[in-house]
Amino acid sequence: MARTMKAAVFAAKGRIALREKPVPEVGPLDALMRVTTTTICGTDVHIMKGEYPVAEGLTIGHEPVGVIERLGSAVKGYREGQRVIAGAITPSGHSNACLCGFCAQDGAGTAHGWKPMGGWRFGNTIDGCQAEYVLVPDAMANLAPVPDQLTDEQVLMCPDIMSTGFGGAESGAIRIGDTVAVFAQGPIGLCATAGAKLMGATRIIAVDRVPERLEMARRLGADEVVDFSKEDPVEAIRRLTEGRGVDVSIEALGLQSTFEAALRVLRPGGTLSSLGVYSTDLRIPLDAFAAGLGDHRIITTLCPGGKERMRRLMSVISSGRVDLKPLVTHRFRLDQIEEAYDLFSHQRDGVLKVAITP
Amino acid sequence: MARTMKAAVFAAKGRIALREKPVPEVGPLDALMRVTTTTICGTDVHIMKGEYPVAEGLTIGHEPVGVIERLGSAVKGYREGQRVIAGAITPSGHSNACLCGFCAQDGAGTAHGWKPMGGWRFGNTIDGCQAEYVLVPDAMANLAPVPDQLTDEQVLMCPDIMSTGFGGAESGAIRIGDTVAVFAQGPIGLCATAGAKLMGATRIIAVDRVPERLEMARRLGADEVVDFSKEDPVEAIRRLTEGRGVDVSIEALGLQSTFEAALRVLRPGGTLSSLGVYSTDLRIPLDAFAAGLGDHRIITTLCPGGKERMRRLMSVISSGRVDLKPLVTHRFRLDQIEEAYDLFSHQRDGVLKVAITP
Amino acid sequence: MARTMKAAVFAAKGRIALREKPVPEVGPLDALMRVTTTTICGTDVHIMKGEYPVAEGLTIGHEPVGVIERLGSAVKGYREGQRVIAGAITPSGHSNACLCGFCAQDGAGTAHGWKPMGGWRFGNTIDGCQAEYVLVPDAMANLAPVPDQLTDEQVLMCPDIMSTGFGGAESGAIRIGDTVAVFAQGPIGLCATAGAKLMGATRIIAVDRVPERLEMARRLGADEVVDFSKEDPVEAIRRLTEGRGVDVSIEALGLQSTFEAALRVLRPGGTLSSLGVYSTDLRIPLDAFAAGLGDHRIITTLCPGGKERMRRLMSVISSGRVDLKPLVTHRFRLDQIEEAYDLFSHQRDGVLKVAITP
Amino acid sequence: MARTMKAAVFAAKGRIALREKPVPEVGPLDALMRVTTTTICGTDVHIMKGEYPVAEGLTIGHEPVGVIERLGSAVKGYREGQRVIAGAITPSGHSNACLCGFCAQDGAGTAHGWKPMGGWRFGNTIDGCQAEYVLVPDAMANLAPVPDQLTDEQVLMCPDIMSTGFGGAESGAIRIGDTVAVFAQGPIGLCATAGAKLMGATRIIAVDRVPERLEMARRLGADEVVDFSKEDPVEAIRRLTEGRGVDVSIEALGLQSTFEAALRVLRPGGTLSSLGVYSTDLRIPLDAFAAGLGDHRIITTLCPGGKERMRRLMSVISSGRVDLKPLVTHRFRLDQIEEAYDLFSHQRDGVLKVAITP
Repeated sequence: MARTMKAAVFAAKGRIALREKPVPEVGPLDALMRVTTTTICGTDVHIMKGEYPVAEGLTIGHEPVGVIERLGSAVKGYREGQRVIAGAITPSGHSNACLCGFCAQDGAGTAHGWKPMGGWRFGNTIDGCQAEYVLVPDAMANLAPVPDQLTDEQVLMCPDIMSTGFGGAESGAIRIGDTVAVFAQGPIGLCATAGAKLMGATRIIAVDRVPERLEMARRLGADEVVDFSKEDPVEAIRRLTEGRGVDVSIEALGLQSTFEAALRVLRPGGTLSSLGVYSTDLRIPLDAFAAGLGDHRIITTLCPGGKERMRRLMSVISSGRVDLKPLVTHRFRLDQIEEAYDLFSHQRDGVLKVAITP
Repeated sequence: MARTMKAAVFAAKGRIALREKPVPEVGPLDALMRVTTTTICGTDVHIMKGEYPVAEGLTIGHEPVGVIERLGSAVKGYREGQRVIAGAITPSGHSNACLCGFCAQDGAGTAHGWKPMGGWRFGNTIDGCQAEYVLVPDAMANLAPVPDQLTDEQVLMCPDIMSTGFGGAESGAIRIGDTVAVFAQGPIGLCATAGAKLMGATRIIAVDRVPERLEMARRLGADEVVDFSKEDPVEAIRRLTEGRGVDVSIEALGLQSTFEAALRVLRPGGTLSSLGVYSTDLRIPLDAFAAGLGDHRIITTLCPGGKERMRRLMSVISSGRVDLKPLVTHRFRLDQIEEAYDLFSHQRDGVLKVAITP
Repeated sequence: MARTMKAAVFAAKGRIALREKPVPEVGPLDALMRVTTTTICGTDVHIMKGEYPVAEGLTIGHEPVGVIERLGSAVKGYREGQRVIAGAITPSGHSNACLCGFCAQDGAGTAHGWKPMGGWRFGNTIDGCQAEYVLVPDAMANLAPVPDQLTDEQVLMCPDIMSTGFGGAESGAIRIGDTVAVFAQGPIGLCATAGAKLMGATRIIAVDRVPERLEMARRLGADEVVDFSKEDPVEAIRRLTEGRGVDVSIEALGLQSTFEAALRVLRPGGTLSSLGVYSTDLRIPLDAFAAGLGDHRIITTLCPGGKERMRRLMSVISSGRVDLKPLVTHRFRLDQIEEAYDLFSHQRDGVLKVAITP
Repeated sequence: MARTMKAAVFAAKGRIALREKPVPEVGPLDALMRVTTTTICGTDVHIMKGEYPVAEGLTIGHEPVGVIERLGSAVKGYREGQRVIAGAITPSGHSNACLCGFCAQDGAGTAHGWKPMGGWRFGNTIDGCQAEYVLVPDAMANLAPVPDQLTDEQVLMCPDIMSTGFGGAESGAIRIGDTVAVFAQGPIGLCATAGAKLMGATRIIAVDRVPERLEMARRLGADEVVDFSKEDPVEAIRRLTEGRGVDVSIEALGLQSTFEAALRVLRPGGTLSSLGVYSTDLRIPLDAFAAGLGDHRIITTLCPGGKERMRRLMSVISSGRVDLKPLVTHRFRLDQIEEAYDLFSHQRDGVLKVAITP
């Protein structure tokens, strides 16, 4: 007789619902994780709204913190009861894409080994972690033990928000002494700001319009903030840089307006590091692009995953270099998750990230 | 009494004319080069048509092969009578952009040291080389001696076409075993094809519609050719790569259609290396861009310049690895240059590049 | 009742012997390969001589070409009967080292995920492939299908010699127009020479003393050869480069003398890419190292492995860019392997590589 | 009648002496700087002791802070009276080495454009800056304006100590989450420690034996310190990293013992970034080098120079990310410089760096 568990599933367009589902069976390469803390991502809201299609009944969520409940027969190097996290992206480790370092485009099972976004499985192509239990595929590539001294909430940003935001700074190849602009200071933009500081940017300009977010940006590393509701951010950044522009701009929202502004503020030879999930075609204005002759670079990054990535991000937290706990502004039990979605999706009450505890 | 020389100047929209102009004065850091061979670039045609604005009366041309006639008082390390070339881009060597390796965006004289396309001076902001003499600025950074065994025509592609085309392959960071698509096989696209082969791409797919250009592409390294007038190149490349896509695509024309196709044929994590000079805004289709989540890279490159670049390119020619002489399909004397423009701008008679000898 | 097979094992110091051993059991992640062609590596000779210790009775060999005989229960994406190769290095895909791209230092099973040379398992820590059958661990990361049009001998160099030699060129980060010196033109040095050409080096200087090897070096890409028994190679290279030195030097032998010469011929800022397996401490002469102030780089590389690496190398062969068949100078049946070791270890009869067919 | 000035010159082995010398003539590309603050480097002590040979009578010193007194006739973009610094390395900007980004190996004037350490001119091949005035060659590539809000002492480390130390971190290609060991915490090692932190290392282990230096290392970013007089640093670091080793080690002293220890503590695939000026041949122990198969990298770095480098370093200071003022422990007037050398060369009184004011 199969045990059951509670899980938040995509019930219908506009509706996430809590349901009883069987606790998953554990295959030879899997691990069953008992979820102790998870969270809701902006992407989950897109899923809820039907803007990003997933199967009806799929368990949502891709940011698990928990404890190993059971290990697959072929999994070595872990023990049941161990505290672990897994990244939002769960690479197989053995696809051609993985073996090139492109875990997020993991094409395991395809003929050639590449699949766009193929590494994103939790809450997308397999059941996710807004549930009491989640099955972690390819466990040996994905389970990262949590150091004892770190709490669940301290590592809750590692699986996605921190990995993505830092990835934006890394893809920008930020160097010591760079000037960097970060467009939008939601959770991912805030982590991009923190990542830019961590890599040695010495002038970080954060753009948003919500005072609390701009204030948080300052705490995490921004040297200057621009409220785009009060002044044109392109003009403001040109003025601040005395006409030179920035070395790297990071787009962390997913709109034409921010993409375009991020391009316009670049110095010649600068890099636009794009993290946004866009929902329309994008336009590159001829002048902003110097007609293709400006030595510009546009780099997109999907959240890096895998246990080594998680280990590194947790070491950032352990070191005290960056403190992301303040991003958790609200807490809910799993059976309050519909309420949590309501708050989070409407960005009420100054919410940045919520913690969900099954 | 100043000597005079013949020079092809921008006379009016639609008209390049040969005029008498004074031979330039030589400043302390300059060198006066007597031009022995030069050529016409697609960019010169844009200038002729008034699509790219330059001052009336400016001498056109940025691809000089010649002999040092006179050296500025502060120029050391050269001797008069030496055979030399200079790149289309003539970096100062001392701007902030140059000191970062972005010679083409040289901002010498600006407050902050960066200027879009600032390294392009010949035939743009200073007199060019479709003339009997040309003044080479910052001569010590720009004059590259031509090895005795190489003819003028053998090195005629180095200043721009070869440097730009190879730059497209280099910006694509092509690796051994890569599959590469090159869109358009004009002179720059052909050099990109040759550059891709030189860097170790093992499957190069060249796209054009002119049979002679596709045939030349095969000679220079293409493993397969696609005639876009006969089949959709995106579909053809998907078929050839069995759905995987290419590691790197190079855009060498400057149109929305080729830019878009170059994006659509990329595998996840692939790089679009853009060489085209665009004349309209560009559109990035949402699906081709995987909504921003495909780990794609779009890199633009303006022709790298400076004497070390020229030295390296001439060493490619010396080694026999690549033979670009066949690109010179027609020859004219300087006083026939209006005729040469007529032929070249209408792409008549299978013209690829012309050699102009003052 | 277990089937048995013939296998060449390390019998005692100085002795490889053919023995009957059970055909291996297939675990869930393994594949059993029926070996159709394999070869002997210089490393195997070190093992035979007892210079590199392995367990008595271990099957030797790490360069398998064959056919899938049986797949483990958890292996997907392959079919029995498929022609495949596996690299000398067989990464797990899931260790921390693998997830950083350091497959050869795979520490699967260790606490932290790194182990020096841990990715080298065949004929080192597990049974190798000089046998009728070999068990391929972590099959999904390691089995690379062989294109139909390629023969066994055409791909026989991919698992080690070509991957290592090309790795030396890649670690040197060779660029278009580089001058490269390759010290020693044994099989690995010859592949380094071929790799240097494939990456765009335009002046390749090959050093050896065996005329046949220098001749083969010319066939594979060397522009000039230096017979070190006739002239000092450091002086010769300085003369050839007019005092400048080389951009990259590749050491492919493993002696102090070649290591030191490879350092001495570097230009300031040059890279020594080391492939040799050394058996003594190395000395860096103060003057050759510019007292530590020459911006020199010394990079070591262990053979890259995994199926994507094999796929890329086979695509080099398929493209016809490089033809390594001439490296196979002698052929033996598996039951003649002791004879093959005798010939190969004494480098008699102009042997470069032998093909062994079970 | 030429004006004269005071200058500290190499008088004889073991003796730096203050002399009257003519104020230099200003050539077309030069700038005359009135020195307001300078300092003494460990290299100057080597020169004083005759361990590094310079011409008798040469003015010593390569770390100038000052004011532009006069500009050469061809120098544009500056004004007399402007506060500036110049790097210890003063690239021409136009040599082949410079045009490849290797400013420190600048071979301006040589046939091929490369010269070991050729970019180091001040106090080595031309008069230095421990004087009332110093002539800055190739002024447009080298003069970096000092922001008004920064004091002389705040930027005094930029020309050499900070550029070199940070260069060690940069050559190590330190990434977010790296573990880094820095051997020796003199001024350069301390700056390497600060640079490692600035690039995102999250576990920095500083090695020295002087308590004040270890304490300063903690202030600048070290997470842990190892007193090598109390425990073997290799064992200590292995213990701290639980056997894994460090991603990057930085050698900042110049001895066999530190070089060797820096190699021994590396994880497989790790990078030894070497900053030391060695005075003996170096030995690479076979075991520490994994016989050449550990994917190790050894990178040496000479102080990067040029005005863009200086601009970036000053922006680090302006941002408040790093405060190097505490490194200035003692202050002298130029006419006390012999006393300063005495203190500094004997490392008395806890001296780290001295400020010298003409």
